Amino acid sequence: MAAPAGFRSFTAHAGIRDDTKDFACVVSDSPCTSAAVFTRSRFVGPSVVVSRAHAARGALRAVVAISKNANVATGEAGLRDAHEIAATAARRLGLDANEVLVATTGVIGRPLPMDLVRAQLDALPGALEPADFTAAAEAIMTTDTVAKVESAPVGNGAIVGIAKGVGMIEPNMATLLVFCFTDADVAQSTLDHVFRRVVERTFNCVSVDSDTSTSDTAAILANGLAGPCDLDEFEHALYGVCERLTKAIARDGEGATKLIEVTVEHARDERQAKAVAKAIVNSPLVKTAVAGSDPNWGRIAMAIGKCEDELDIDQEKVEIAIGGVEVYPPRRAVDLAAIEAHFRGDDVHIGVRLHTGEATARVWGCDLTAEYVRINAEYST
Amino acid sequence: MAAPAGFRSFTAHAGIRDDTKDFACVVSDSPCTSAAVFTRSRFVGPSVVVSRAHAARGALRAVVAISKNANVATGEAGLRDAHEIAATAARRLGLDANEVLVATTGVIGRPLPMDLVRAQLDALPGALEPADFTAAAEAIMTTDTVAKVESAPVGNGAIVGIAKGVGMIEPNMATLLVFCFTDADVAQSTLDHVFRRVVERTFNCVSVDSDTSTSDTAAILANGLAGPCDLDEFEHALYGVCERLTKAIARDGEGATKLIEVTVEHARDERQAKAVAKAIVNSPLVKTAVAGSDPNWGRIAMAIGKCEDELDIDQEKVEIAIGGVEVYPPRRAVDLAAIEAHFRGDDVHIGVRLHTGEATARVWGCDLTAEYVRINAEYST
Repeated sequence: MAAPAGFRSFTAHAGIRDDTKDFACVVSDSPCTSAAVFTRSRFVGPSVVVSRAHAARGALRAVVAISKNANVATGEAGLRDAHEIAATAARRLGLDANEVLVATTGVIGRPLPMDLVRAQLDALPGALEPADFTAAAEAIMTTDTVAKVESAPVGNGAIVGIAKGVGMIEPNMATLLVFCFTDADVAQSTLDHVFRRVVERTFNCVSVDSDTSTSDTAAILANGLAGPCDLDEFEHALYGVCERLTKAIARDGEGATKLIEVTVEHARDERQAKAVAKAIVNSPLVKTAVAGSDPNWGRIAMAIGKCEDELDIDQEKVEIAIGGVEVYPPRRAVDLAAIEAHFRGDDVHIGVRLHTGEATARVWGCDLTAEYVRINAEYST
Repeated sequence: MAAPAGFRSFTAHAGIRDDTKDFACVVSDSPCTSAAVFTRSRFVGPSVVVSRAHAARGALRAVVAISKNANVATGEAGLRDAHEIAATAARRLGLDANEVLVATTGVIGRPLPMDLVRAQLDALPGALEPADFTAAAEAIMTTDTVAKVESAPVGNGAIVGIAKGVGMIEPNMATLLVFCFTDADVAQSTLDHVFRRVVERTFNCVSVDSDTSTSDTAAILANGLAGPCDLDEFEHALYGVCERLTKAIARDGEGATKLIEVTVEHARDERQAKAVAKAIVNSPLVKTAVAGSDPNWGRIAMAIGKCEDELDIDQEKVEIAIGGVEVYPPRRAVDLAAIEAHFRGDDVHIGVRLHTGEATARVWGCDLTAEYVRINAEYST
């Protein structure tokens, strides 16, 4: 795995909920440029409030992430806790508080067990080792079944990205928890533009259950140790890392057995293409049909129809294909056996042409299974 | 059961899918005033296209409803079939074609087996008997587990309503299939206003899975045989019938074990109240928590947060209660045992106060269970 130079990390089991790791700190040895985007939820957690303010300078240098407790809907005490985590980490790492991003994820509405958190913060900086990004990806997992870490070389250095998130995934401004680290030297304003463009086409295009997290945070830290690189190459490499993380998130959706990729073409604009694609990938009836390998393609037509404000969509002109098999308009008998066979695979591809223009969008999601219900019916207890 | 005079009906097993009834015709002996609302889907079935045109005159006198096949996404042939059903029924009943409303519901994308349908139409008018509304309610069922029929006396007559629908329920303009019949004498324009007001506060406030049907139709026929009645009394009676049908629909949601009622108060306006209420009742994570009696109340806060365009919602001012138990703001330890006990009941009540104004809205939905997934993973096959 290509890895960026100059980052150190510490991960631990603080004991917040179960016997898995729940504390991660990644810090750069030298100052960074940074970019970050956050959830648009009207019910955000104090970690987002604090980190949004810290990220505004574009010079984040450390990430402290705590899993299994979201520290959301916890009132004044929750806000104090988030500030304390940033301040303590900064003091022990010799940084300014606003160089620290704090992220928390897990159950909503429970006070953070600060004694357990303080015990881990007190291990800084002595416990830091050369960065182990896989361990950090493991430490931020909640109901994830696999750690999500991807990397790519770029110039003389590398980009690595870690992510968590398998439910409550319908990002609108940012997504989940995603942290990217690179030793490429990229100016802050450039990094910000590139990161937002990439996030818009990757993490903002994944949906597991249409629920939006209160804690979604995506950030990138660039310490510049590997020197400058071609910016197109950088964006391409970052896009690759983020697209692979996005697909990993969709494939690991709670209870998911399949990745669903929906491509909408010939749309009026990207907004319309994405709206239609998301209506399909979020439809419980499409998701259950895929889960059951039921070639009930009419539900895709239904889901397109849900976009009732898209008045230029004409059902006489729409084309729908599943795994390359044309199903609509009803030109001939649909090959249901071919669709069923495609649905039985691990990757399901749904293609729609709206013929309202020339724009394209692609989104990712997963099927809806009884296991999703089981996981979420007994999450907090 | 109070029943309106002057209606006859015929129900039958045409054999479209299984061995249950799938054909219903209800007709008034005398001319009617009528009102009707239809789905706003961009992918509507030909039955909606034909019936919307017929309903425009406000003088529907007969309903022909076919279940187990939606006749949607069936191209030119589907439109011809819908016209033929209306024309044949009209001819045999001695009516104009535009006095007939045609409704079809069931699998999308399969040609209607017209030979089977014609055989039933040919039984008209001889097969008509004094109206059996319960039989008609049974004949329009698809995955419904109970027939939905409600009635109320009004003036010297009565209103009866029948409805079907348990999935793909997120009405936006109309809903499901709902047919109301009354012998009250109500002018057409009045009937139209009253019906739309009632639908907006009942069927437009129910949601099972956020999917919108291609076939949603709600209509009322008033033949006037019982003479005029007080209009406030009429609206009150109609509201009662429709609210009971709405709750029956939510309670019979596919796989549902519980009715969820969400009331949002102190909202800026009704639109905001309804948007927040629907975000809660549609949230898969709220629905699964209720299914599992998991007192994970933080998910209600999350769902409110999803309304990201409601910029006046301030999480510091929002109040949340479950079954009358206050859970937010975090004033004291939440009584999780009380919430769990409330979730174990048949009726779950979630109350939210936004403190952005004085408007109120109430919506109904149901929990999300593994059974919903099972039903929908093998529906068409």
